[in-house]
Amino acid sequence: MPTEPQVITCSVPMRWGDMDAYGHVNNVEVLRLLEEARIHAFGPPGGTGAPGTEPVAALFSDVPDGVQALVAEHRVKYTAPLEYRNIPARVQVWIAALKPASLTIAYLVRDPVTDVVCARAETTLAFVQAGSGVLQRLTAAQRELAAPYLGGSVFP
Amino acid sequence: MPTEPQVITCSVPMRWGDMDAYGHVNNVEVLRLLEEARIHAFGPPGGTGAPGTEPVAALFSDVPDGVQALVAEHRVKYTAPLEYRNIPARVQVWIAALKPASLTIAYLVRDPVTDVVCARAETTLAFVQAGSGVLQRLTAAQRELAAPYLGGSVFP
Amino acid sequence: MPTEPQVITCSVPMRWGDMDAYGHVNNVEVLRLLEEARIHAFGPPGGTGAPGTEPVAALFSDVPDGVQALVAEHRVKYTAPLEYRNIPARVQVWIAALKPASLTIAYLVRDPVTDVVCARAETTLAFVQAGSGVLQRLTAAQRELAAPYLGGSVFP
Amino acid sequence: MPTEPQVITCSVPMRWGDMDAYGHVNNVEVLRLLEEARIHAFGPPGGTGAPGTEPVAALFSDVPDGVQALVAEHRVKYTAPLEYRNIPARVQVWIAALKPASLTIAYLVRDPVTDVVCARAETTLAFVQAGSGVLQRLTAAQRELAAPYLGGSVFP
Repeated sequence: MPTEPQVITCSVPMRWGDMDAYGHVNNVEVLRLLEEARIHAFGPPGGTGAPGTEPVAALFSDVPDGVQALVAEHRVKYTAPLEYRNIPARVQVWIAALKPASLTIAYLVRDPVTDVVCARAETTLAFVQAGSGVLQRLTAAQRELAAPYLGGSVFP
Repeated sequence: MPTEPQVITCSVPMRWGDMDAYGHVNNVEVLRLLEEARIHAFGPPGGTGAPGTEPVAALFSDVPDGVQALVAEHRVKYTAPLEYRNIPARVQVWIAALKPASLTIAYLVRDPVTDVVCARAETTLAFVQAGSGVLQRLTAAQRELAAPYLGGSVFP
Repeated sequence: MPTEPQVITCSVPMRWGDMDAYGHVNNVEVLRLLEEARIHAFGPPGGTGAPGTEPVAALFSDVPDGVQALVAEHRVKYTAPLEYRNIPARVQVWIAALKPASLTIAYLVRDPVTDVVCARAETTLAFVQAGSGVLQRLTAAQRELAAPYLGGSVFP
Repeated sequence: MPTEPQVITCSVPMRWGDMDAYGHVNNVEVLRLLEEARIHAFGPPGGTGAPGTEPVAALFSDVPDGVQALVAEHRVKYTAPLEYRNIPARVQVWIAALKPASLTIAYLVRDPVTDVVCARAETTLAFVQAGSGVLQRLTAAQRELAAPYLGGSVFP
């Protein structure tokens, strides 16, 4: 386990339609941006979509047939309104916890011009067998893949 | 403060498009359903949209000009996949905390057929002045309106 | 084939998040409302979601295994801004064309308070076999189910 | 008016959540991609969001205060399923018509790997004064800005 975790910095494009009637990126759409950052870093869920480019670490895309990565928990603190711009938001991603059958991803969402942190968030995901819903333990390969990115919680 | 809080039960229609490639209501869209439940219970944010029907308690719609209700924090635990049906999800809503300048809404999202709880969640909102971002204290009228719905946390 | 087609009137809830930064229901979300109206009238696509209530005519839900109803074309004219209200939009739906391997659905989207038509639209759908993409001819049963709703085009 | 119009080629990222339960990019989300392509080419609507980068031609962003670009019509033909990939769709954009008070944008949406055209589309937009809804004629400057991109219709 590293003392200096690697943080993955993702460029996540906002969409004009992410704004709501208040004129800011809607709080729900911020979670969509987190999903995109997660996929940028760790790959699209295996078995969905068509091939593209290699993610930074293929935690979610290299899974056995029928295994799904399900969100078990989200926690998001909004610390400043996120303004829509036609340049991507900067989202920093790392892993805040590795447990036997789940992992927690941490994020900081930053305005790409001011660098202000607009949201701090964590998502806990579990791997389950699609049909049965049976939890899958993280494999040794997954733990090894995840280890370099293991850092602290954004909600200490 | 009541010992038996009133719980507001909302019928929140799912949309076919809320499903993702896994074939369940997407975890981000569950937060959209929470927004709708909140609005059903406490009204659309003042100054947006056009008139419709009276909410159960007009906490968000009866605000002074230029005051916005901003989401400060979401926490959601997903306890079962939410299946899309062409009948509304049942969402139970109450108030889990009333502070000087914020309130926390609690929700249980239930499958409308099986009654299974698919998500437990809380949202903390603050009232701010749109231009300046200055926090507004809850008024006496708002506290009175909210009081009957004050109950416990879903994350004890 | 009737000279007086039956028009199906659907109550389609808008969501607060359907508004964009202009403060109206976003033009793209109007197409989501059309999808919901279509499903209200003719059922959720077979093989997706979980059971709910019977649609008016189960054109899309009663299909053989592996048959999908795909959108081949949309055309939408926006005739007035659609204001968000916390009461459902009124969408009138009928069938504008029945061809050997496709059908066209016509819609009028009306403000639920003023009754103003905010959009006129048509969607052409085809039935295909999921794996192969092979077009399926409409069955005699489908044609019979659709016949009472057959009326004129909104784009004459 | 050029005989060889310039076509603007946009990289428009898809999102994993754009997929529906059929496992393809949902037909409604294709219209969201068109919106993003339009904004990439011609700028975010003036008066919304915060500054970013210069668009190719600032048709929508350089408008007088209170002038909005409203969608008057969409027409989309879907010619192949658009598969989600974690690399951007390629969308070609040009102007299919310039009228006194409206313009029509044409698009081809292509799979970024196979180059297959998945959708052909046109959007007609009009400029209106936000409060009054009064149509604004295109200015000489707007016509000049648009001229190099003027080409044929995708629906001949």
